[in-house]
Amino acid sequence: MLNWEAIFATRSSRMRASEIRELLKLLDKPDIISFAGGIPDPKLFPDEQFKAAYADVFAGEGAGAALQYSVSEGYKPLREWLQGEMGRIGIDCTADNIFITSGSQQALDYIGKLFLSPKDTALVGWPTYLGALQAFNAYEPTFDQLTLSGNRTPESYRGAAQKAGGEVKFAYLSTDFANPTGETVDRAGRERLLAMAEELDIAVIEDAAYQHLRYEGEAIPPILSLEIARKGSIENTRTIYCGSFSKTLAPGLRVGYVVAATPVIRKLVLIKQAADLHSSTINQIAIAQVAERYFKEQVAKIKSAYSARRNAMLAALDRYMPAGATWTKPEGGMFIWVTLPEGMDGAALLARSVETEKVAFVPGQAFFADRSGTNTIRLSFSCADEAMIDEGIKRLGRLIGGVIAAAA
Amino acid sequence: MLNWEAIFATRSSRMRASEIRELLKLLDKPDIISFAGGIPDPKLFPDEQFKAAYADVFAGEGAGAALQYSVSEGYKPLREWLQGEMGRIGIDCTADNIFITSGSQQALDYIGKLFLSPKDTALVGWPTYLGALQAFNAYEPTFDQLTLSGNRTPESYRGAAQKAGGEVKFAYLSTDFANPTGETVDRAGRERLLAMAEELDIAVIEDAAYQHLRYEGEAIPPILSLEIARKGSIENTRTIYCGSFSKTLAPGLRVGYVVAATPVIRKLVLIKQAADLHSSTINQIAIAQVAERYFKEQVAKIKSAYSARRNAMLAALDRYMPAGATWTKPEGGMFIWVTLPEGMDGAALLARSVETEKVAFVPGQAFFADRSGTNTIRLSFSCADEAMIDEGIKRLGRLIGGVIAAAA
Repeated sequence: MLNWEAIFATRSSRMRASEIRELLKLLDKPDIISFAGGIPDPKLFPDEQFKAAYADVFAGEGAGAALQYSVSEGYKPLREWLQGEMGRIGIDCTADNIFITSGSQQALDYIGKLFLSPKDTALVGWPTYLGALQAFNAYEPTFDQLTLSGNRTPESYRGAAQKAGGEVKFAYLSTDFANPTGETVDRAGRERLLAMAEELDIAVIEDAAYQHLRYEGEAIPPILSLEIARKGSIENTRTIYCGSFSKTLAPGLRVGYVVAATPVIRKLVLIKQAADLHSSTINQIAIAQVAERYFKEQVAKIKSAYSARRNAMLAALDRYMPAGATWTKPEGGMFIWVTLPEGMDGAALLARSVETEKVAFVPGQAFFADRSGTNTIRLSFSCADEAMIDEGIKRLGRLIGGVIAAAA
Repeated sequence: MLNWEAIFATRSSRMRASEIRELLKLLDKPDIISFAGGIPDPKLFPDEQFKAAYADVFAGEGAGAALQYSVSEGYKPLREWLQGEMGRIGIDCTADNIFITSGSQQALDYIGKLFLSPKDTALVGWPTYLGALQAFNAYEPTFDQLTLSGNRTPESYRGAAQKAGGEVKFAYLSTDFANPTGETVDRAGRERLLAMAEELDIAVIEDAAYQHLRYEGEAIPPILSLEIARKGSIENTRTIYCGSFSKTLAPGLRVGYVVAATPVIRKLVLIKQAADLHSSTINQIAIAQVAERYFKEQVAKIKSAYSARRNAMLAALDRYMPAGATWTKPEGGMFIWVTLPEGMDGAALLARSVETEKVAFVPGQAFFADRSGTNTIRLSFSCADEAMIDEGIKRLGRLIGGVIAAAA
């Protein structure tokens, strides 16, 4: 028998199946109220707009080009549309500062490839987006805890990285309504991060996947816009902004984007050329058309639906959660993060919840690079209607209350 | 000013722009007869079939699923269709042996990621597909020359790899009508490669991108099918078969596939999950529909067109090329490889050819890992009509004849 493990590269041992993915497979049953999947509601997709966009591709003379190979940096009209969008949020740039990826997950993979040598350090939140941990992991880094509260100095990060055998290369964070916590980094936090990145001479990876989904409060300028304001030009910035159409238009087309200084864009284009040549031509054309014609209306539509669901979940948590559990109050996005009493195990709770209450969620531990956070869980409100949310949280509150009472 | 080079990973210095891509940009002028681009003729794409396939996605209830996230291994009906296709060429497998990628370029990137640690050795042809060199290069390997003529022993490969600081991990080759040479590895060569891979205990990467485009002669069984015949089951094989719809249906959708033993497929699925989650859902559905309804007709259509162009180019070469130039006689594919007299420089010839003859091609040096092969050029016949082929080769023959005469 062939011993594949002996032939595989050492890095491949770091790749493991996402627990969440495995979990979602197990939970894919019709009788379960699921707050597990962090995906957009397919009933809200702009089907009619996409139907028209694909039909238009084949109506004109352009079908040949839409089905043909195209350039690695991405479809120019889409990059130009994004340039306008970026301008509106304080990111003054040209189309040459914009690079199209196959979803923002691909941006994270390429950023790992561009920056991380084995043993280098990536600063990430405790918890953080699991997909970022998975993407970076392929390049064998060490993770250190990114904290904006000021109890870690640049020197302490540098020292820890040297001890781990490499250098700090970047800080990664999701700025708005982050997956998994739903929390947003305030303006002061963004400014502190920039100052620290400056001192450490590292890149800042700004994951803006949920930025359009704000349901209340005022928008906070992206880190990249704050840095452009400081430095006078995007060409002097160290922030790499990662955006996506997956949460606004549709994820199944796999279209995301990176906005950054041109030396970074040029490297990412080379990486993409070697890795998959370019993102789907026809999908970039379809996304460009739907974005041009319908982006605002679509964002308004999903914000209205998701914000009602968020409100329903926050109200239900207030109503049904026992004392001892606390949770975030996100101003947008898809997630609420619940901290259970110390000692309670989110994974064990899930097993009981699915069995006795038919309610699913994701145990929080998966989102911690150090595997801590056992007493946390992630609830997603994006795919359940308000009545189901009320019923599901009621059952979950009852279960958690019972566990607390039994332990007392 | 930010010094990005100091922050980038060491591997990023290995990534350089493809000369061919840069070249094609320069040559993109209407008055040039181009034999440079190795791309399918967009006039032959099955537009009407794709138009119907995308329309069908939005006609039924399934639009939500087509626009949604999907599984990393790929769309099941497409994998099942491929299973049937594979069965017809002697590759007996299940859908679990099949993994969908965003074009076969992505398969090469993931294979590099899976197998290559820095300093490991990849065996490749001299010349070989430039995209393979680029994909593997990101993982910092050494390249050694794969030769099936028997003048290298397994021991010599192993010794050279150890000297380079790693191990031989795989042999990569394009089996049929390879890019850039148009040559096909005969059955005996495939069997010798399997025997050598066995002795070295390495994987075989079989690039079958052009396999469907045979215009004459009998099909030779894929290496994977030969190995299944030896070993009794795909689960006992070491060959990783990479296929693509880019040369048959259309490249712009970015859909390719890998067929291999399940331990390899499982790892590739994990890599994809971390790298871009999955290939475009809607494009996989569209490809599956067009493949199911129209694959045979489409392959017959393009074979008829390309074989006429190949015939025209071979006839023109016979007619116009001066003594001293030799070329391959491909039984399929898109390329003819010309070897010029020793000492003649393909790149210098291109500069003169574009200026004085308005004819473009690709200098062969780019396809050699050791940058040898200066006296070679690649001609593509896929995108020019027969009259243009005759005229272009006439001019090129005249130019080469003049250079030979001047040197004599």
